[in-house]
Amino acid sequence: MHESPLERVAELTLLLAVIIIAAKIGGEIAERYFKVPTVLGELCAGIAISPFALGGLISLPVIGTLFRVEENSESTLPVAPELFFIAQMAAVILLFEAGLETNRKQFLRYVRPATAVAMGGVIVPFTLGMVATIWLGFANLDSIQGLIPALFVGAIMTATSVGITARVLSDIGKLSTPEGVTVLAGAVVDDVLGIIVLAVIVGIHDEGSVSAGRIAIIFAKAVGFWLGLTIIGSLLSGRISTLISWFKSPGAALAVAIGLAFIVAGVAEVYFGLAMIIGSYSFGLALSNTNLKHRIEVPMRRVNYFLVPLFFAVIGMQVDFTSFFSAHEGHSTLSTILFAVVLSIFAIVSKLVGSGLPALTVGFNRIGSWRIALGMLPRGEVALIVAGIGLASGTIGREVFGVAIVMTVVTTVLAPILLIPAFRGGSGLRSDDRAESEPPASPPQADATIDSRPP
Amino acid sequence: MHESPLERVAELTLLLAVIIIAAKIGGEIAERYFKVPTVLGELCAGIAISPFALGGLISLPVIGTLFRVEENSESTLPVAPELFFIAQMAAVILLFEAGLETNRKQFLRYVRPATAVAMGGVIVPFTLGMVATIWLGFANLDSIQGLIPALFVGAIMTATSVGITARVLSDIGKLSTPEGVTVLAGAVVDDVLGIIVLAVIVGIHDEGSVSAGRIAIIFAKAVGFWLGLTIIGSLLSGRISTLISWFKSPGAALAVAIGLAFIVAGVAEVYFGLAMIIGSYSFGLALSNTNLKHRIEVPMRRVNYFLVPLFFAVIGMQVDFTSFFSAHEGHSTLSTILFAVVLSIFAIVSKLVGSGLPALTVGFNRIGSWRIALGMLPRGEVALIVAGIGLASGTIGREVFGVAIVMTVVTTVLAPILLIPAFRGGSGLRSDDRAESEPPASPPQADATIDSRPP
Repeated sequence: MHESPLERVAELTLLLAVIIIAAKIGGEIAERYFKVPTVLGELCAGIAISPFALGGLISLPVIGTLFRVEENSESTLPVAPELFFIAQMAAVILLFEAGLETNRKQFLRYVRPATAVAMGGVIVPFTLGMVATIWLGFANLDSIQGLIPALFVGAIMTATSVGITARVLSDIGKLSTPEGVTVLAGAVVDDVLGIIVLAVIVGIHDEGSVSAGRIAIIFAKAVGFWLGLTIIGSLLSGRISTLISWFKSPGAALAVAIGLAFIVAGVAEVYFGLAMIIGSYSFGLALSNTNLKHRIEVPMRRVNYFLVPLFFAVIGMQVDFTSFFSAHEGHSTLSTILFAVVLSIFAIVSKLVGSGLPALTVGFNRIGSWRIALGMLPRGEVALIVAGIGLASGTIGREVFGVAIVMTVVTTVLAPILLIPAFRGGSGLRSDDRAESEPPASPPQADATIDSRPP
Repeated sequence: MHESPLERVAELTLLLAVIIIAAKIGGEIAERYFKVPTVLGELCAGIAISPFALGGLISLPVIGTLFRVEENSESTLPVAPELFFIAQMAAVILLFEAGLETNRKQFLRYVRPATAVAMGGVIVPFTLGMVATIWLGFANLDSIQGLIPALFVGAIMTATSVGITARVLSDIGKLSTPEGVTVLAGAVVDDVLGIIVLAVIVGIHDEGSVSAGRIAIIFAKAVGFWLGLTIIGSLLSGRISTLISWFKSPGAALAVAIGLAFIVAGVAEVYFGLAMIIGSYSFGLALSNTNLKHRIEVPMRRVNYFLVPLFFAVIGMQVDFTSFFSAHEGHSTLSTILFAVVLSIFAIVSKLVGSGLPALTVGFNRIGSWRIALGMLPRGEVALIVAGIGLASGTIGREVFGVAIVMTVVTTVLAPILLIPAFRGGSGLRSDDRAESEPPASPPQADATIDSRPP
């Protein structure tokens, strides 16, 4: 596409329309005919129109192939950067909304249990990912460098894509339940641990080792930013709310609030190495007990109905099943398929055990632990991005990349299917904790009434 | 910016936040303290943060200069393509909303007068633009090629930026008045005439001449598409509305309607040479008498409160006053300033006369003609884009470009200031037409109640 800016914009407008409409059709079919969460239909619509499926086959005059993989030196995108950017903005706003909807007192109460959940959810998947890679011969035990693919698969396994869980819990009004809050707090901790794991592996890959000092700096930066944001945000939340309320023209409060969330998200990623969505979630959390929340919640929901499906469709568009079947470098198709099956099973088991068992020890009963473990299950775009970095940097080959994608799709599709039935029924807290934590549980109930759709 | 996609996205997120917040601050100050339309504040905020003003001076760690001019072979953008794309989407949705808000019967009734208004509003500004350029020595009468700058300035003068007028009229609830409808219908005709003028000039520039057959084809394509869209859209509007109503999940109807508007907008530009906003306006018009309209109007307004200020801020960011003062190729600063003053006056006079006089002959009284002429006055992004094409292709120099920008800013800023007082007071129709056209004038009144803000 080398043409005037307006011609390029017009072509991208057509492609954006295809994504919007496909996502909405997918969501509608999922909800109405399959009785599964909308987000699943959006993901599948994305897979269907991806450059590796229909989008790569359909060709339009002037525009050419509908969707192409956009490659640069560091990574690959399934869509033009303009469309990828909009999808990412959607994720930032979605998590800002999730933060606003979260009860902050609940959150602070469940940070400690969430830390246990997240640590288990990083250590067990990382270990099992390494074990599977070595066991099936996709890593080489002779040297540190030969081990790198195993370390990288481990890192991919640790990912938690909280966007999908947040979306499902928000849809069914369970975001402020103890389990919902624990999953979201767990995702924050998981992100901090995840960037450390990735930094260590990239350090080993690039320089053969990584110093404890560097890890400490990365850790301190990420944790320091998050703590600082949460503390300052909470202290200043009243003032921020007043500041935003200075804007009287219609819609201005929402726009300015989203603008501030964008700033926090951007700063988190650019200067502190945290994911953007962790930044916007934490900012939403800081504002969750202000008057502002009530003023912007409904209009933001309108914006999100429009934007968020784009994010999930674009995640789906990153799924390249063909890379799994077409590229074989030294391994038979059978052993690659076996690796994919084993890794997918390990991915499910490791998060269920790694996040579920700690949950049992910090106040949740079996129902609650099951809900939390399922909430941590989806790997989503986080795993795809880590895998993309691995592929682009040559750390893992196309076949391992394909295997990682199968694992990601399996966990990402499975989680929303299981989450909704899991949240039916009684409390997930152990009876001795319930008396202390449940009443006055008004925020979860208030949440549940906002969205009156049938679950 | 050469980094991973997520790093780039994060940096752009910060810049997007700066634009959003600046636009909202500008809009709020304009409305509250200067009692001028919000859009004017958004434009000024854009001018202030442009790469040529504050945005080019402020520098952040990692990111560097806040806003840079992004150049490619054909044109220049004041922001990264991702942000420009979002701004353009905002314009497409804004004009879709304007189309939905327009009363279709009114529109069809006023197409004929609007054609007269638009033709006068093209011919007179084009002529005066040429005259000014030749008179002040910025074109060369020796050859056809020497005349090209004069032709190009004429083309820039013919532009009409209906976005600003639509926004102001929508804000004060006057979009469905006879004058409002005439301006919007006039903008459609103006766009068709404008692309023909541009095609002729580019043809003369590239090949020394342009065949009547080619002009006929361009004309037939543009008019044919617009007529086809309007007729088919009107015939199928009930079915389109039913189709969109198939989507039951919250927000889906809006998203799908916007998706379809994007398709029409993209097809208009990519395949028929019409502006995207003309496509989305016409699609909105086709749906304006359906049930769908009532279902999506309110949520779309929410989305637009968020998006549309971005569009006007980005228009403002294209304004480069420095090019006017810094580049002098063979002309003295004084003669360039004189050219800017003369062209700005000619631009105002030529649209007021060119569009106002025909309006007087087709059923409007002096009040109505004044309103219509003011509505056609702003040159906005259309002139900036045409001027950008001229600069990039070497047709005009930087000093003529700077002059064109001054003219654009003057007309664009003047129009909203004058439009609001102009729409106070009585009917703009001649008394003999009023009996026929005014009652039952429920749509304009209905519009006026939607937005209950003080004008």
